[in-house]
Amino acid sequence: MNAEIIAIGTELLLGQVVNTNATFLSKELATLGIEVYHQSVVGDNPKRLKEAIELAEKRSELVILTGGLGPTKDDVTKQVVAEHLGKELVIDEAAMKKIRLFHKQRKHPMTENNQLQALIIEGSVVLKNNNGLAVGMFLNLENQSFLLLPGPPHELEKMFEQEVKPLLLKQTSKETVLLSRVLRFYGIGESRLVTLIDDLIENQLNPTLASYTGKYEVSLRLTANGSSNTECEKKLDNLEAIIRERAGDYIYGYGDDNSLVEVVSKLIKEKKLTLSAAESLTGGAFQSMLTSTSGASEFFEGGLVTYSNRIKEEQLNVDRKIIDQFGVVSSQCAIKMAENVRQLFNSDIGISFTGVAGPLELENKKPGTVWIGIAVKNKETYAKCFNFEGDRNKNRELSVLSGLHLIYRDLLD
Amino acid sequence: MNAEIIAIGTELLLGQVVNTNATFLSKELATLGIEVYHQSVVGDNPKRLKEAIELAEKRSELVILTGGLGPTKDDVTKQVVAEHLGKELVIDEAAMKKIRLFHKQRKHPMTENNQLQALIIEGSVVLKNNNGLAVGMFLNLENQSFLLLPGPPHELEKMFEQEVKPLLLKQTSKETVLLSRVLRFYGIGESRLVTLIDDLIENQLNPTLASYTGKYEVSLRLTANGSSNTECEKKLDNLEAIIRERAGDYIYGYGDDNSLVEVVSKLIKEKKLTLSAAESLTGGAFQSMLTSTSGASEFFEGGLVTYSNRIKEEQLNVDRKIIDQFGVVSSQCAIKMAENVRQLFNSDIGISFTGVAGPLELENKKPGTVWIGIAVKNKETYAKCFNFEGDRNKNRELSVLSGLHLIYRDLLD
Repeated sequence: MNAEIIAIGTELLLGQVVNTNATFLSKELATLGIEVYHQSVVGDNPKRLKEAIELAEKRSELVILTGGLGPTKDDVTKQVVAEHLGKELVIDEAAMKKIRLFHKQRKHPMTENNQLQALIIEGSVVLKNNNGLAVGMFLNLENQSFLLLPGPPHELEKMFEQEVKPLLLKQTSKETVLLSRVLRFYGIGESRLVTLIDDLIENQLNPTLASYTGKYEVSLRLTANGSSNTECEKKLDNLEAIIRERAGDYIYGYGDDNSLVEVVSKLIKEKKLTLSAAESLTGGAFQSMLTSTSGASEFFEGGLVTYSNRIKEEQLNVDRKIIDQFGVVSSQCAIKMAENVRQLFNSDIGISFTGVAGPLELENKKPGTVWIGIAVKNKETYAKCFNFEGDRNKNRELSVLSGLHLIYRDLLD
Repeated sequence: MNAEIIAIGTELLLGQVVNTNATFLSKELATLGIEVYHQSVVGDNPKRLKEAIELAEKRSELVILTGGLGPTKDDVTKQVVAEHLGKELVIDEAAMKKIRLFHKQRKHPMTENNQLQALIIEGSVVLKNNNGLAVGMFLNLENQSFLLLPGPPHELEKMFEQEVKPLLLKQTSKETVLLSRVLRFYGIGESRLVTLIDDLIENQLNPTLASYTGKYEVSLRLTANGSSNTECEKKLDNLEAIIRERAGDYIYGYGDDNSLVEVVSKLIKEKKLTLSAAESLTGGAFQSMLTSTSGASEFFEGGLVTYSNRIKEEQLNVDRKIIDQFGVVSSQCAIKMAENVRQLFNSDIGISFTGVAGPLELENKKPGTVWIGIAVKNKETYAKCFNFEGDRNKNRELSVLSGLHLIYRDLLD
């Protein structure tokens, strides 16, 4: 099967938004063995959208449209597709119910526009949107299929994974089982990882192999097909073993949604430990990340944000002499912060962050210079220095992830 | 003038590379007043590239091609364009000299392929590449212009800035001024805002009006054209006044990159105040957001993450009786937390967050129930209740933004 992707949105043509949807879909379609020969973008303009559809259906079996399913006047995708196919728009009761409930719960008045989001093209399979109100649609006609997906990436990606993939598999399958496994990496860039497994990617056939880069984490998705689950599992095991030989040190887990914080939280809970934190340059970002997953209260009770030197002294009892002698961007300060927050909050693990977020230098140290201290009950406290060399927020975010990774390595030992 | 962008590269169709070139070029062209109605992507395939060019020249005055100028067999862009136009490829001596020097300096043998990069379409203006070996080309024909640019973003962006912009400016100037103004909103959804100004959007001409939605903030971009800055400013002022009449309560600032946290931080600094925070359900997210902008140390020294009841008592001195009698999800607890953190950290403003992030209920209160307390020196402390009804992270993020918004409103009064 071949497919083409039409992204709809004037904001794309104005350069205000990057067309990551086309990238995501192309990658996903490749792993399903569906060839993409064209991507295009048109604005919120019925005439040009119609022309794009007419062109696409001449050359592609599956036409995928993203965007333009929202509640505003600019959103015209399903109207144009319906008119082009000579079909009616009808109300999807389940979608309407969800929209009503949404507005009722928020005590927002529901406008007529909002109701537009419940309209679907007659005869289409409705694709549920678990991250928003606009439903997707799949229309399987005689020689042609149409797929209408929402524009916001977090809505589109979830919908593709949960609703579209099974449908497309049914269309393309030749009685085979398709099984995917996602390996997650931290501490290695995508380009370096890809270089390490260059030959595997080059010669991929079954399993196929695709890399995805999160903000700072990298994932590899291995997809095998075969006649049974067992056969697929075996193929995945074999490929994973080869990858582990080359880059196993950077693997921290499995699964699409399995972030570093989830893996580390699970590990701390399994070991029945508790943790507290004292943050300077990260300003609360580490504790915020910890508490972003539910169940954090099992091992986390609280901590301090000690942004200034005064607060490090007054609230965290860091000796003035340490700050005067070594500075706050020092192993000595990081160690004291980690030890003191552990004692003060009476936890098993204390972690501290102190360093230079940037853009300015601090204590003659470059932005990105960060000390992370780890104090564990009945173990020797230590601190590790990182040099991230990013901008302010990258330095802060990498500090948080590196802190998680330090705890991960520490608890595995 | 109108333009369209054709990006060439099989890696784009496989989802291995994001098409940031299209975004960059679209944004740049918009600021030059050149309208982009189409973007498309084809692989390294002469037939499909030729079709894309034939389509593009029917509808666009300027056809911009990016990618496919390199030295490998896959790179076919200039060959296809030359053949299509019935023109020869000729050697550009300056480019050839640079390529020879490059290989000589690196002691790399120069292959025949490398010499391909010095070929240009006869009659084209050569665009220098200061970041690579492939030159660009600008062909100005009777009713049509072609622009050929390299694929690597750092080569393309530099070339556009240094070589292309001056050429295009010469082509497009009609002595008119184009001026944009961005209004930023919080506390109102895009669809509700758009409904309030429905008629303005419907009848837009000059200024034009477009809404953009961030994660929780909404922007309106007003763009006027005229013969002078003064004339444009006046048109923008008039439209802004009408918008303010209808939705002024939700406007917090101007500018593309001007987030709520930046506006609030600036305000606190202007008033020479200091702030500290005590966070329960937000777990540090508020303080992390505050410190995400540089210069936060001018008004923020630190705060507490008091996730558990024990820490609220031990570290923040919240009376056990308050928790027992009213619960932690209460105005009483929020008020005590705000007052105590203000005193403990000796700041002018204390802000507190306590509530139910979810997914589970707490104290028989629904996820999304959040109390935010505000204690300001010499003012009466108060707490406000919110009901967000989102998922865990949405509830936390909305809490943070609502906290900022509360301070904003409080300081403006």
